[in-house]
Amino acid sequence: MANVAIIGATGYGGVELIRLLHTHPQVRLSYLSSDTYAGQRVCDVYPHLAAVELPLEKRDPAAAGECDFVLLAVPAGGAMEVVPDLAEAGARVVDVSPDFRLREAALYPRWYKFEHTCPEFLREAVFGIPEWHREKIRSARLVAAPGCYPTAVLLALSPLVAEGLIEPNDIIVDGKTGISGAGRTSLRLDYHFPEADADVATYRVGGHRHLPEMVQELSGLAKAEVRIAFAPHLVPMARGILLTVYARPTAGSGAAELRDCLRSRYEGEPFVHVLPEGKWPHTKWATGTNNCFLAVGDDNSTGRVIVVSVLDNLGKGMAGQMVQCLNLMMGVEESTGLAVPAAYP
Amino acid sequence: MANVAIIGATGYGGVELIRLLHTHPQVRLSYLSSDTYAGQRVCDVYPHLAAVELPLEKRDPAAAGECDFVLLAVPAGGAMEVVPDLAEAGARVVDVSPDFRLREAALYPRWYKFEHTCPEFLREAVFGIPEWHREKIRSARLVAAPGCYPTAVLLALSPLVAEGLIEPNDIIVDGKTGISGAGRTSLRLDYHFPEADADVATYRVGGHRHLPEMVQELSGLAKAEVRIAFAPHLVPMARGILLTVYARPTAGSGAAELRDCLRSRYEGEPFVHVLPEGKWPHTKWATGTNNCFLAVGDDNSTGRVIVVSVLDNLGKGMAGQMVQCLNLMMGVEESTGLAVPAAYP
Amino acid sequence: MANVAIIGATGYGGVELIRLLHTHPQVRLSYLSSDTYAGQRVCDVYPHLAAVELPLEKRDPAAAGECDFVLLAVPAGGAMEVVPDLAEAGARVVDVSPDFRLREAALYPRWYKFEHTCPEFLREAVFGIPEWHREKIRSARLVAAPGCYPTAVLLALSPLVAEGLIEPNDIIVDGKTGISGAGRTSLRLDYHFPEADADVATYRVGGHRHLPEMVQELSGLAKAEVRIAFAPHLVPMARGILLTVYARPTAGSGAAELRDCLRSRYEGEPFVHVLPEGKWPHTKWATGTNNCFLAVGDDNSTGRVIVVSVLDNLGKGMAGQMVQCLNLMMGVEESTGLAVPAAYP
Amino acid sequence: MANVAIIGATGYGGVELIRLLHTHPQVRLSYLSSDTYAGQRVCDVYPHLAAVELPLEKRDPAAAGECDFVLLAVPAGGAMEVVPDLAEAGARVVDVSPDFRLREAALYPRWYKFEHTCPEFLREAVFGIPEWHREKIRSARLVAAPGCYPTAVLLALSPLVAEGLIEPNDIIVDGKTGISGAGRTSLRLDYHFPEADADVATYRVGGHRHLPEMVQELSGLAKAEVRIAFAPHLVPMARGILLTVYARPTAGSGAAELRDCLRSRYEGEPFVHVLPEGKWPHTKWATGTNNCFLAVGDDNSTGRVIVVSVLDNLGKGMAGQMVQCLNLMMGVEESTGLAVPAAYP
Repeated sequence: MANVAIIGATGYGGVELIRLLHTHPQVRLSYLSSDTYAGQRVCDVYPHLAAVELPLEKRDPAAAGECDFVLLAVPAGGAMEVVPDLAEAGARVVDVSPDFRLREAALYPRWYKFEHTCPEFLREAVFGIPEWHREKIRSARLVAAPGCYPTAVLLALSPLVAEGLIEPNDIIVDGKTGISGAGRTSLRLDYHFPEADADVATYRVGGHRHLPEMVQELSGLAKAEVRIAFAPHLVPMARGILLTVYARPTAGSGAAELRDCLRSRYEGEPFVHVLPEGKWPHTKWATGTNNCFLAVGDDNSTGRVIVVSVLDNLGKGMAGQMVQCLNLMMGVEESTGLAVPAAYP
Repeated sequence: MANVAIIGATGYGGVELIRLLHTHPQVRLSYLSSDTYAGQRVCDVYPHLAAVELPLEKRDPAAAGECDFVLLAVPAGGAMEVVPDLAEAGARVVDVSPDFRLREAALYPRWYKFEHTCPEFLREAVFGIPEWHREKIRSARLVAAPGCYPTAVLLALSPLVAEGLIEPNDIIVDGKTGISGAGRTSLRLDYHFPEADADVATYRVGGHRHLPEMVQELSGLAKAEVRIAFAPHLVPMARGILLTVYARPTAGSGAAELRDCLRSRYEGEPFVHVLPEGKWPHTKWATGTNNCFLAVGDDNSTGRVIVVSVLDNLGKGMAGQMVQCLNLMMGVEESTGLAVPAAYP
Repeated sequence: MANVAIIGATGYGGVELIRLLHTHPQVRLSYLSSDTYAGQRVCDVYPHLAAVELPLEKRDPAAAGECDFVLLAVPAGGAMEVVPDLAEAGARVVDVSPDFRLREAALYPRWYKFEHTCPEFLREAVFGIPEWHREKIRSARLVAAPGCYPTAVLLALSPLVAEGLIEPNDIIVDGKTGISGAGRTSLRLDYHFPEADADVATYRVGGHRHLPEMVQELSGLAKAEVRIAFAPHLVPMARGILLTVYARPTAGSGAAELRDCLRSRYEGEPFVHVLPEGKWPHTKWATGTNNCFLAVGDDNSTGRVIVVSVLDNLGKGMAGQMVQCLNLMMGVEESTGLAVPAAYP
Repeated sequence: MANVAIIGATGYGGVELIRLLHTHPQVRLSYLSSDTYAGQRVCDVYPHLAAVELPLEKRDPAAAGECDFVLLAVPAGGAMEVVPDLAEAGARVVDVSPDFRLREAALYPRWYKFEHTCPEFLREAVFGIPEWHREKIRSARLVAAPGCYPTAVLLALSPLVAEGLIEPNDIIVDGKTGISGAGRTSLRLDYHFPEADADVATYRVGGHRHLPEMVQELSGLAKAEVRIAFAPHLVPMARGILLTVYARPTAGSGAAELRDCLRSRYEGEPFVHVLPEGKWPHTKWATGTNNCFLAVGDDNSTGRVIVVSVLDNLGKGMAGQMVQCLNLMMGVEESTGLAVPAAYP
């Protein structure tokens, strides 16, 4: 039984962590911080968590650091403020902010508009996709869990790029996301129900902050510079991401080869499911879970292959993956607390 | 470890049962029948249940009857066809069809347009709301779990009627339901996405089939004839029920007394949550769970009290409640497999 | 051709007025004010109004007052600040704020938390439902158009109360509204897409500000005190209101009599449609239009009648009705600019 | 005043035509056919069209052919059955089925699984996008209006391909459509509200029937073979299409040049709106209208340009465009009956 802290416990990521960990047989939630609701209990802020009577406290790295593990569900720039103290206190950390995902400190001013204050941790941080970095995560002091879009892209493309099955410099990624990806405190007109309902729109074309971590990870596997054209879209649903990738297969390969590659790479993985030919995934299949669904098909007109990747932005794209990492770090069965499939429909 | 069968495993109720029981520590799913998909596996029909490779079989009461428990998730008229055989085989049954919910066989032709073929089971069947019939359920051979609307009404009103706090003959119930309540194979234009989205409509005013079981159960508690004006509405969401009850309090009572009554009646119940004054429940709080949320307020203009009841029509209104009954019948902790709160938002 | 001003042109009511009036053959939009967007053009703020290149100006009653007609689409308390100046300037006003809807100045501190600053206009203001006050509206200097809920209630119940067909002191109104009713600048968490989607909830039980105007108007017709239990609900759709009324018919009447009463009262009215027995309206039928649909049925269990009223909260519940009033005041055909039916689905 | 017939008047396209034409000042709806509802009136089938008391008749080309114009809103294969008779009767036709959109009769067996029965009309038919074939439409006997996806693609890409600003053989089109595109009588599980709500999914990858008409029209302009990778997606909204095009600009061009090209090509067009740099369109802007919104941006990572095209699949993608064509054929102002902007939100 491990003592676990959550910093940022009342955002959408934090509350999903509470949901998953409250009934986790190996976890005791020992410290929950919330800037907005400190002083209240979880069940007061979120009445649907009626059984979670735990108190919400002011952010205090010292108190959190007394726990065995600290889960950081804070916005960009919030994690680097507390990680050095937590590390010194001996806590092991899973961070879902972008603060430790990029290897190059110089990328932070460009993409996130801040100077990194503890770049010495960038080399140490383990990129938190268990399917690719399982062993390092087990012993890591600091895990940097990727964002929702990068997880969906990397699960789909890492095997293909690593095996040289697609051209690395001509990848198109069209993203469709549910609106919880924007967070809870971001009350912009774009997310106001009357405007967002029955609507689809493109946003941040070519400049989404999640792009550099996709490029970094894939380039490492490709041993070549990866180039991605990425346009994300807002879709009228609360949760879920569907990515449609249009890639150019290298000579001699096509959908069948790519599908085989994904199948053999993810065989035995409990959370990554490669669909048979002709089946395409629905975001709803993953809602509320840590599952990712992948499918591949040929485009006969252009010779491209189309790869579709689906997951829940708050599940495998956030809290689910953090719990999966935590399970590895604790040395318990990796799917503990994550095995219930989606409520459908 | 009990062997459990599900008859009607691929409707929305059946698939929710599979979801809850696949990871249930005391249950082995031993037999699943599906009229539509016999011969396929669960994971072929519902790819989001990728881990459930169990076969779907033709309906065969003899095979089902070899299990310790049989869960019936079939339409009206389907359960009475198999219950006698199952009983003879020695299986214990939880049925969510209406076939054994009404005490009077004569009500079936009137409300369901069929003659009951085994009325001798009507007296034996235990009405499947654990909060009200827990002890009888533990030892029952046949449990008749109520429908989604009646569960929501009965959890809210049973204590008030039993204690004589509201007038029994002047109850108004305005229901709002998500569309999964209509089932999966019912592909009517009313449920076609383009028509149902961004729309609210009243349906079956005064003649909803769920009315007689509400009246039967409340009248038994009231020791008087209960009369309910009930108008259900279709709301553009997949899951969830919210009922708004307008009742006339008896002399000397009001929202405070009614709330106290509900509180004391449901104290210690894991799935029924009475909200404090001024808080009103959201259907989303219950989505995917076995929880029910209740709230009470005064209407100062007319002196009526307003009672709101919220649950998931496929959770506490269907599969969740069936599992809760099953747990009681198996003699395991009542909330086994039902403790994870709602994924929010 | 009349010169028309809109004050509050960029809220949801204002933009709907622009939509309807931009192509109105008898109207020249001469002055549009917007506190938020003054200095920009309509097409800059709302790109879907690409053809409306009109400038948005600071609120200036003197400039507005030079127009023949002024439409006020401002929040509570905003109209009484400008009406005296507009009246002095000789402009005729249609106001959709509550500022001139209540006859008793003393009701404003109680329901709206402000003292009325020009109560002398309260007697003069004509309540803006053309189907009931057509002649007075034609010559009015100040029309106070009712809110969305009251319009839906009054169109349904006014004939029944006036004819003594229902008991006036035991009326239950259950309201379901789309979320645009909350306005555009109200970026509360309740209207944040991830929270509002797939959700239904009760709000402001017993205390909705629209209650007193319903009671005032119906009591005048009933010549008795009308009492209404009113609980509004938020439903996941952008537009539309559906009200379900549970009323007690007076001796000898029932749904058939009530339907006949509504039919004969609204015969020839272009915007009020009474449905035949057994048909119930959908909110979607009214979306984007000035139409109202009414239906009546018996509840056999309690002897009550159920009356359902449907309209678009921004159409007949707001901008459509304002234009209908404006047409009357201008002396043009009442349905000018309002005749196109709903886009369905 | 022209006599106009609609064949297929009660599908979603037909009912939208009725909506637009019922109040059209130059049109008399003289004949409406419906296979499903013959014998009823429009207002009985669609109560929201309460004012349209016109009868629905059995399909009878002779009766339709007596009208000046016939609008065909029938499924694939339904138009070629009646066009020869209509032509002989002297009626002029606007057809929105695919039956006369492809120049090569041989393409029909391949894409639509039928042999064309009157290929002699294929040469004569004018492709019904007024912005590109205005003069031919004015005098045409048979106009073949394109489908919703092709209209969105062709308005966006035709100028760019014609001017040689993008590479014709490496075009990626990612489509997102509302579900009304599937029609009304297609009650598949995919469109059942509980399954379609809160969900996004890819469908018919590489094999959508709309692909050949896109390729045909663009290839004609490019004077080279155009190749398009096209993956459509179903999005949980009733109406609207958003296409995201990833194209490779030819040497020396980029988003600025492409935007200028679109601007100058569509200057003065009432229904095509090119957005300024940095603005991206929302499908909701076009709902219920004949408008199309276009935007262009650079993808800095790959050097591609991203072009977004938005319209209403039942508006400019179907009925709106048919009315626009009809206006041209009648010789009236092209935007008659189409000028009201979208109801927002």
